[in-house]
Amino acid sequence: MKLGALEAGGTKMVCAIGDEAGHIEKRRIFPTRTPEETVPEMLDFFAAEKIEAMGIASFGPVDLRKGSETWGYITSTPKKGWADFNLCGAFIRELGVPAGFDTDVNGACLGELLYGNGRGCSSLVYITVGTGLGMGICADGRLIHGMLHPEAGHMLVRKAPGDDFRGICPYHGDCLEGLCCGPAIEARYGITARELPGEDPAWGYTAYYIAQAAMNLILTVSPERIIIGGGVLGHPGLLEAIRARTQQLLAGYLKSPLLQNMDTYIMEPGCGGDQGVLGALKLAEEAAKDDKGRKMWYNEKTDK
Amino acid sequence: MKLGALEAGGTKMVCAIGDEAGHIEKRRIFPTRTPEETVPEMLDFFAAEKIEAMGIASFGPVDLRKGSETWGYITSTPKKGWADFNLCGAFIRELGVPAGFDTDVNGACLGELLYGNGRGCSSLVYITVGTGLGMGICADGRLIHGMLHPEAGHMLVRKAPGDDFRGICPYHGDCLEGLCCGPAIEARYGITARELPGEDPAWGYTAYYIAQAAMNLILTVSPERIIIGGGVLGHPGLLEAIRARTQQLLAGYLKSPLLQNMDTYIMEPGCGGDQGVLGALKLAEEAAKDDKGRKMWYNEKTDK
Repeated sequence: MKLGALEAGGTKMVCAIGDEAGHIEKRRIFPTRTPEETVPEMLDFFAAEKIEAMGIASFGPVDLRKGSETWGYITSTPKKGWADFNLCGAFIRELGVPAGFDTDVNGACLGELLYGNGRGCSSLVYITVGTGLGMGICADGRLIHGMLHPEAGHMLVRKAPGDDFRGICPYHGDCLEGLCCGPAIEARYGITARELPGEDPAWGYTAYYIAQAAMNLILTVSPERIIIGGGVLGHPGLLEAIRARTQQLLAGYLKSPLLQNMDTYIMEPGCGGDQGVLGALKLAEEAAKDDKGRKMWYNEKTDK
Repeated sequence: MKLGALEAGGTKMVCAIGDEAGHIEKRRIFPTRTPEETVPEMLDFFAAEKIEAMGIASFGPVDLRKGSETWGYITSTPKKGWADFNLCGAFIRELGVPAGFDTDVNGACLGELLYGNGRGCSSLVYITVGTGLGMGICADGRLIHGMLHPEAGHMLVRKAPGDDFRGICPYHGDCLEGLCCGPAIEARYGITARELPGEDPAWGYTAYYIAQAAMNLILTVSPERIIIGGGVLGHPGLLEAIRARTQQLLAGYLKSPLLQNMDTYIMEPGCGGDQGVLGALKLAEEAAKDDKGRKMWYNEKTDK
């Protein structure tokens, strides 16, 4: 089956052609400008191929509620031009194929589950710490949605003693994202995460906060593995510190063989950066099999 | 269909006979003593009826991993005699019927979803604050399991300024349960939650910590509703305070019509105390339909 995949990010749009086995045949990256500029470029790329379905894993927040009048939309993003934009609708309408839709991090979670370091798991959490802090969650083989979709990057964590940084989240100040994302590190120290010395206590704070999030996720959705990636995790030793802190915080409360080896319980991504696109291919495959992705959820009347 | 339901608690065992529509025909409560004393009493009660399947919602931790050698066991409880006890196996073996099994709080979550204040939801969180602090989670119509099962009562929360209580959790000290369960309130003030005056600042702390848990759950599993019950919630005004604090903490970040009315987003239980038994009836119905509950998961070789 020839499938189209789009990993829609705030900086770049990764477009790919592939199949249901996760083979990527062709890819093209477009910078994310306005929808008027960027969407036609992507449509041209996909229209040149005979794809049977599209899968889109997008930055958000997005509307994933099947039956919602704005299913397939990017909703309240501050990204200029993209708020209330019917991203999925544009592809369904112009390419005439069904489309599957989810968040970028849920897509990446799915990609890791199928082809990366989450293989063999049925419950997986994917965390990315970069420009923002996002999480995708798969429980019992299914991506989690509900009222909305996971936004666990904004979880509240306990501040480390001595840390008086107020955080940069415009909504919550010092929530997890407000303390740990790349721009938070830059705001705190005036230099980027990349420039921050390896031994700086900032990394201890970062490990502590991400470990708290890991603990809370373990206690909530009980994943079989947690995958943590993103630019900030490029810092040598950070992943190891998160593993050690998480185990320390759990304090032996949960008895599972999976927790006995933290090196395999908390891992880096294993798709060479393709996890988002691979997840999007899976979303496309599901949409191809279940045409409701076009017929039922796409709402012509409210398309704009 | 005639079904057996057991809500197994650390203090009492609620046994009931009912059907798949949630009608409870008969019930009997036994105090929880040792398995040697209490299990035969329960077996006698159920053996007198021609039930087609059992559903058990039990205190834990429990082993819910299908295919595990100790599926159906209560595992590491400090409750004397019940650690490593094959609770489900006893019923399957002695009554010769399939059995469904889950945690007490997942059972209660299911009961509320079907018959209580969670009706109409497909994603629901159930929180009980009493002797312990437990949470059941249903996402997209299915109870959440993974490596283990939700244990979100032990979530870490941010301490309120001025609160130097160290908590009573033997593993984590001042985790949510260590700060907010009934015995924590008693340890903090030397009097029970029931005796604590209505205007005591303790209730402000309690509301703040439970609201943080609500926020983190909303950001993680995105339930359509949260139900909070248990003895501690009997305090007048506490539920209202939790609602207000949760909305304040979310700070308008999530856009959903469901969050616009906190009185219907965070609710008390609506099954008159029967949520656990009603959930267990549903577990029995599922086991009756899918006989794997007996044939596959029950492991004769490791039964003891």
